[in-house]
Amino acid sequence: MSNDDSLSELECWYEFASNYSYLSIMRIDKLAQDVNVKLVWKPFLLGPIFKSFGWESSPFVLQKEKGAYVWQDMVRQCHKYGIPWNKPSVFPRNAVLPLRVAIIGAEQPWINAFNQGVMQLNFAEDKEINDRDTIAKVLHELGLPADQLIAQALSDDNKSALRAQTEEAQRRGIFGAPTFFAHGEMFWGNDRLEDALQFAAQRAPIINQTNDNTG
Amino acid sequence: MSNDDSLSELECWYEFASNYSYLSIMRIDKLAQDVNVKLVWKPFLLGPIFKSFGWESSPFVLQKEKGAYVWQDMVRQCHKYGIPWNKPSVFPRNAVLPLRVAIIGAEQPWINAFNQGVMQLNFAEDKEINDRDTIAKVLHELGLPADQLIAQALSDDNKSALRAQTEEAQRRGIFGAPTFFAHGEMFWGNDRLEDALQFAAQRAPIINQTNDNTG
Repeated sequence: MSNDDSLSELECWYEFASNYSYLSIMRIDKLAQDVNVKLVWKPFLLGPIFKSFGWESSPFVLQKEKGAYVWQDMVRQCHKYGIPWNKPSVFPRNAVLPLRVAIIGAEQPWINAFNQGVMQLNFAEDKEINDRDTIAKVLHELGLPADQLIAQALSDDNKSALRAQTEEAQRRGIFGAPTFFAHGEMFWGNDRLEDALQFAAQRAPIINQTNDNTG
Repeated sequence: MSNDDSLSELECWYEFASNYSYLSIMRIDKLAQDVNVKLVWKPFLLGPIFKSFGWESSPFVLQKEKGAYVWQDMVRQCHKYGIPWNKPSVFPRNAVLPLRVAIIGAEQPWINAFNQGVMQLNFAEDKEINDRDTIAKVLHELGLPADQLIAQALSDDNKSALRAQTEEAQRRGIFGAPTFFAHGEMFWGNDRLEDALQFAAQRAPIINQTNDNTG
């Protein structure tokens, strides 16, 4: 998937509806550059994963104690990272259209800017993101042929591609977003982004390493 | 609760059965000293909290994808912190006896060493911890009158005290362990220990602060 085999890779599995994916999407590009790691973008649908656990919505909606906490945590996390935050008035937001566009853009130079644009609409501007005009505007602002890209995003082949990527997420044991893979190992959550990048930048996996310096 | 009103306080709500509580218990004392924060120890039973959500065990047992991930995460986290780790052959372990002892010890100078001793048995030595001889040995090694303390731990008053503390956890919206409170704000999980301590060491809560330097 990489055009530059000399770089280590980190897979970033993300969902535009996911508030902790927002924290990672706004930070990951700079952090990856700092450690010379190439990002492999893996947009997917979290809904079918949750449904497979028997959940009809996000655990932050279904579990009211955790839900109440999460919005407090987001205020503090955004403050810590210097990222704008407005609690979305609808959560989780349907994000199937921007995810279909992200499938097309995954290996394009504009993917990071597109991801950040969509995330900012959801979590800083409290806007619906499953809207054709809104997504067209994000693409236009990046100087891209919006109508053409959206038509491609809505093709049957591309719809199937997002479904297939979601099924791959499930096969690989993904249970939330963001999730990162480096050297075949899974790291779950924005809280593990730095660890995952550091691990990606190394050669040997820690789990199989002989451990000289811990008790 | 503090004898030294000049120190900020952090409440640490923990369970000996909880692997992420283990990571915090092994680190918290030194980190708290570094920022001059007094620890207020709040041992409680996680089981009744989970039961109130309709869960018959830990989510790491009930949700197999998350469960598989957690043990991988623990290997890496322990490696990162330089903490010993052996996956417990029984999880989650019944910890009611050591929790009852911890209720007695919460304001005693030996509480941190006792916590670490019990945690190490569970997560480094893979030993049962709800055993009278085992807990007596931990207390003996700290130079304490083990028989007397265990008799006190098993008194009806003290059993009620642990139940009451667990009910308080529930009232305060605790949904997992470890959980920290500083200036009335909740921080969940070992991943927030540093943030919670830093917040405790400050005066004003971030959530109500006017925010000058973020977008």
